[in-house]
Amino acid sequence: MSSLPDQANSPVLNSRERAKKLVLSLQDEICNGLETLDGEGKFIEESWERPEGGGGRSRVLKNGRILEQGGVNFSEVHGKELPPSITNQRPEAKGHSWFATGTSMVLHPKSPFIPTVHLNYRYFEAGPVWWFGGGADLTPFYPYLSDTRHFHAVHKNACDSINPSLHKVLKPWCDEYFFLKHRNETRGIGGIFYDYQDGSGQIYKGQKKDGKAASISKEVGNCSLTWEELFSLAQACGKAFLPSYEPIINKRKNQNYTDKERDFQLYRRGRYAEFNLVWDRGTIFGLQTNGRTESILMSLPPLARWEYGFKPEKNSREALLTDLFTKPQEWFNDNSLEERCRQYQALD
Amino acid sequence: MSSLPDQANSPVLNSRERAKKLVLSLQDEICNGLETLDGEGKFIEESWERPEGGGGRSRVLKNGRILEQGGVNFSEVHGKELPPSITNQRPEAKGHSWFATGTSMVLHPKSPFIPTVHLNYRYFEAGPVWWFGGGADLTPFYPYLSDTRHFHAVHKNACDSINPSLHKVLKPWCDEYFFLKHRNETRGIGGIFYDYQDGSGQIYKGQKKDGKAASISKEVGNCSLTWEELFSLAQACGKAFLPSYEPIINKRKNQNYTDKERDFQLYRRGRYAEFNLVWDRGTIFGLQTNGRTESILMSLPPLARWEYGFKPEKNSREALLTDLFTKPQEWFNDNSLEERCRQYQALD
Repeated sequence: MSSLPDQANSPVLNSRERAKKLVLSLQDEICNGLETLDGEGKFIEESWERPEGGGGRSRVLKNGRILEQGGVNFSEVHGKELPPSITNQRPEAKGHSWFATGTSMVLHPKSPFIPTVHLNYRYFEAGPVWWFGGGADLTPFYPYLSDTRHFHAVHKNACDSINPSLHKVLKPWCDEYFFLKHRNETRGIGGIFYDYQDGSGQIYKGQKKDGKAASISKEVGNCSLTWEELFSLAQACGKAFLPSYEPIINKRKNQNYTDKERDFQLYRRGRYAEFNLVWDRGTIFGLQTNGRTESILMSLPPLARWEYGFKPEKNSREALLTDLFTKPQEWFNDNSLEERCRQYQALD
Repeated sequence: MSSLPDQANSPVLNSRERAKKLVLSLQDEICNGLETLDGEGKFIEESWERPEGGGGRSRVLKNGRILEQGGVNFSEVHGKELPPSITNQRPEAKGHSWFATGTSMVLHPKSPFIPTVHLNYRYFEAGPVWWFGGGADLTPFYPYLSDTRHFHAVHKNACDSINPSLHKVLKPWCDEYFFLKHRNETRGIGGIFYDYQDGSGQIYKGQKKDGKAASISKEVGNCSLTWEELFSLAQACGKAFLPSYEPIINKRKNQNYTDKERDFQLYRRGRYAEFNLVWDRGTIFGLQTNGRTESILMSLPPLARWEYGFKPEKNSREALLTDLFTKPQEWFNDNSLEERCRQYQALD
C-alpha cells in the first residue's frame, strides 16, 4: 500500500494516521470476535491496491457454522478530485485532493432467526475540510423485540458516552438513510447513522430526494463535537458492535428453522440487494471512484430470491416484519409494541 | 383502466391507440407462444391502475417446465410532467403532459444452458414530441456460438425488413446500453436496442456517463424513419422474438446440467440483478414515476447468488462467457470465433 499523502491541512496532528489505525484495529477486533463466535468459519484476507492511489484489505468468511457469509473491509484511498456524489454535499471539497479511510462490514447469517447486520465507520479529508461518518444497522427476517431493543441500547450507550444528545439524532437519521423509497420500507430495525460530521458545531441531517443524495440542509441537533470527540464516537460505536450483536447470535443460534422460513429470509435478502444497489451512497461512491467492485459488492447476499407479488399471511410472523419492523419505531418508549407483537404470535 | 388522454398533438391519426394495440397484441402473442413452448407453466394475469393515471396488465409464469420465471408486462400510463431522467434527454418534452405505452418481458429459464432473455418495445408522446424505443437482448450462462448467431440473425432480418442500414446501428447500441461499467462486461451477447426515435431524420446513439443517461449526442446513421416505419420496426422486431428464441430452447431443453452449472447460472444472475438495479434506464424511470414496483422489478431473477472473488478456471466454459461472450463481438463477420470457442471445449 502506498504511503499517506500530504497532511498539511490536517485538523489535528497525524489525523489521517490516527483515523487509519482506528479503523484497522476495529477490523481486527471484529474479525477476531466473529471467528470466535462462529467457531468454524475463518476470514480469508486479500490485500489490494487501487491504481489511482491507496488500497485496502478485504476479509471474507464463507460457509461458517453461523455465518453464511461475512465480509469486513478496510480501505485507505486517495485521489485528485472527489466524485459529484460527495462534492454536491460538501462543495468546499471541490477541486482539492482527498483522502478517505474506513472499515465496513456486512454479515449474512445462515439462520433466518439471526439478523443480517451492517457496520461502517469512515473518515475523509479534502483540502480545507474533513469529516467523519458511519453507523451500524440491523436487518432481521423474523424480528424479536428484545433483540431489537438490545441492539439499540448498546449503541445508545456508546453514543451517550460521547454526548447524551447524540442518540436522539443518530437513531432517526439511520431510519431515514436505510430506507427503500420504492418499497416504503426501512431496511430493518435501524441503529445509528451519521455523515459529514465536521466539527462545525452543527449536526447535519442528510436527505435523499429522487434517488440522489440531496444537499445537506437541516440542522437537527445543537451539540458541537470536536475532531477528538468524533474520533471517540467512531471508536465507541465501533467497539459497541460485538456486544450489540453477540447476545443475539447466542440467543438464536440453536433455534431450528423450516424451509419456508429460510425461503422468506432469501426473499427479504432480495430487499437488501435492492437497497445496496439502488440507494446506498457508499456503493455509489465506490462505483463512481473506480473502487474495487468485488469489495464494494461484498455486501450483497450469498443467495437471494425475488418473487412477484409475494404477500405474507395476515398476522403471520412474516407480516410482523413489514407491518412493524420495517417502519421507524420508538423502540424504547412505545409500550404498545409488546402487545402488537403478540398479535402476530411473535414469541421472544 | 382509464381512457386515453387528449391526442391533439398526435403525429398520425390514433397514434396512441395504435401503439397501445400493438404492444397489447405483442404481449398476447408472446405469452401464448411461451405457454405452448413451456408445456406446463401458465401465465397468471393481474391488472392494476396507477393512481396518477393509466395502468397495466402484468403476466407472470412461475415454476414452469422450462421457465423458472417469466414476466410479460403491458402498461399504458400518463402524467403531468416527465421525470428528469427523460427530460434531460428530450428537453422539448419539459412542461408537457405525457403518454407512454409499452410491453416488456424477462424470462429466467431453469436450465443454465438456456439463456435469460429480455424484450421491451415502448412509445412516448409528450407535448410536441413523440418517440419509439425498444429492443431485445440475450444473456447466456453457457454460451453457444450457433445460438448467438441465430438470435442476432432473426433480429437482423426484422430490422432489414424496415431499412437495411438499421441493424448496423441497433446492434452496437445494444452492446453499449446493456453494459455493466463496474464489471467491464456486457450483460450478454446483445441483440438490438434503440431509443428516442422521433422520425427527425437522424438515428441517435444514447451514451451513458457516470451512471446517468447523458445527453443524446451522436448521430450514427443517416436513414430517416417515419412514424409508420418506426411503428413497423417495433412490430417486426416484436414478432421476431419467438422465432429468435424458440429454436434455442428446443435445442437445449434436454441437456442435463450439474449442480456446479446451476450454481454458475445463479452467480451470473447476480450480474443481471446488478445491471437492472444500477444501470437500467427503464427501471430508473419506473421507480422515479412512482411506477408499480412489483411489475418493474419482475425482471429480477427468482434466485441469484453472489460470491466474493469468484474466478472461473482458465479455458473453462465459465471462462468462455467472460472472455468472449460478455464483450462486444462481430458475431457474423469474425471467423476467428469458432476457433476461440474450441479452446474452451465449447461444443455446439
